Amino acid sequence: MAKSVREKFRVSAEPDLTAVDPRSRPVGPKDKTAAAKDMVHLAARLEGLQDALYAEATVDGTRSVLLVLQGMDTSGKGGVIRHVAGLVNPQGLHIASFKKPTEQERAQHFLQRIRKETPKAGQIGVFDRSHYEDVLIARVDSLVPEDVWRARYDEINAFEAELAGHDVTILKCMLHISSQAQQERLLARLDDPVKRWKYNPADLDARCKWPAYQEAYTDALRFCDTDSAPWYVIPSDRKWYRNWAVAALLAETLAELELEPEFPETGIDVARERARVKASVIV
Amino acid sequence: MAKSVREKFRVSAEPDLTAVDPRSRPVGPKDKTAAAKDMVHLAARLEGLQDALYAEATVDGTRSVLLVLQGMDTSGKGGVIRHVAGLVNPQGLHIASFKKPTEQERAQHFLQRIRKETPKAGQIGVFDRSHYEDVLIARVDSLVPEDVWRARYDEINAFEAELAGHDVTILKCMLHISSQAQQERLLARLDDPVKRWKYNPADLDARCKWPAYQEAYTDALRFCDTDSAPWYVIPSDRKWYRNWAVAALLAETLAELELEPEFPETGIDVARERARVKASVIV
Repeated sequence: MAKSVREKFRVSAEPDLTAVDPRSRPVGPKDKTAAAKDMVHLAARLEGLQDALYAEATVDGTRSVLLVLQGMDTSGKGGVIRHVAGLVNPQGLHIASFKKPTEQERAQHFLQRIRKETPKAGQIGVFDRSHYEDVLIARVDSLVPEDVWRARYDEINAFEAELAGHDVTILKCMLHISSQAQQERLLARLDDPVKRWKYNPADLDARCKWPAYQEAYTDALRFCDTDSAPWYVIPSDRKWYRNWAVAALLAETLAELELEPEFPETGIDVARERARVKASVIV
Repeated sequence: MAKSVREKFRVSAEPDLTAVDPRSRPVGPKDKTAAAKDMVHLAARLEGLQDALYAEATVDGTRSVLLVLQGMDTSGKGGVIRHVAGLVNPQGLHIASFKKPTEQERAQHFLQRIRKETPKAGQIGVFDRSHYEDVLIARVDSLVPEDVWRARYDEINAFEAELAGHDVTILKCMLHISSQAQQERLLARLDDPVKRWKYNPADLDARCKWPAYQEAYTDALRFCDTDSAPWYVIPSDRKWYRNWAVAALLAETLAELELEPEFPETGIDVARERARVKASVIV
């Protein structure tokens, strides 16, 4: 099992999104029932791994994990946060959503608002959209000149290498859906009064630039896939498979940290502290 | 059922912690199995209520909820975050842990670091310790002169009233444990290598000042219980009961907001948007 999930979803050296079927299931459960069963195990595994990461940081650990989620509207970034990030202790989570930058943020370097939200030691950070928007919508909508967005791939790589140097283990997931699935999901949002608030007429503008977005995504995957900050392409037309895949990737990535279950060594004199606690009877 | 949970746990006008049995179960399930069953329902209820709160804020809502957790070491603040806050979508949660203030924070007004962490519209904020530490440890350990901490009760009331004026619904839970339960839990932390990192020899210092802390808690409960920021005393020697009680209180508090399940009205022309989405076939 080791490495298999990561290998299966890792983007290829020459990314071609048209070659990845958003309904494919290259590894893992073949149906919803099997996935639900496996999620129970993954939840327990993730909880234990996160506890160990959190515990390590309490004593002297410096490590953290950052899960970056990108994908077209309705691809399921929110669903992954609810169903995958929702599996672990919220105390060890740091979720940051990057919406349209404010005027103040636009006046700053594009990475500045991102830096503020990187996970602290012991945390699992989750980015709901990220600095990649600055080579996606910024490119598709020409929000900055071409030489500016072209230079950003290198800036992003340098930034992510810097994070890795600060013991941040990064994994980046592109939630890959078909345009048909997006259409169905947008219609579902409109038809269900409980979901209607999620519908934003502006989403359709991005949808109408689908090919340009796929091209921009392809370049982001091509230029910014590194061993210390790998890109994974998650077939996401099936929600249950998408959630399973991200949970499995996260668990495998955490397992790779080889966190000690009995960590950390606290240097406490257990016998002495036991005696002190025993003696402390409150009247 | 309406109001019953809040009424049962609401602190009395003349608080007397010695009169509240930390093993009592004034309302709700009588055993662990019944509590586990009820938690499944509470989880579904909380999720629906939080979704509605979050949805409201996406359109034009300004409301948020703030759950303040206080209690002696080992009383279960972390357990409540894991098992109660962990029930809802992490995207709508904002958890803030207030540890010993840094030197910089000590140079500021005590509420300054608190203000930074108050929940935004649509969020459920959780405070793991809070501004109450400034009338608890600050008082017990004489970190500031008496006239300073005495003045803080009014400052806290003014601050909480201000939050309430900004549509923050506040509920404050004091996790009430016996000194015997604390002793057992400290020993358990020492004995279990997986839990040992949670043991801090300094916790014993606070334990040895148990009566002074109970007195300080009693005054915090007495002076700072208001209808817009009520204090609840949660019998917490049984972990399953404590978790159930806080979950039930939170659900009842959210229900009181009368969030509309079909909210919010987005003002979208559904028929027109449907037609636009239908027409947007990507080739």
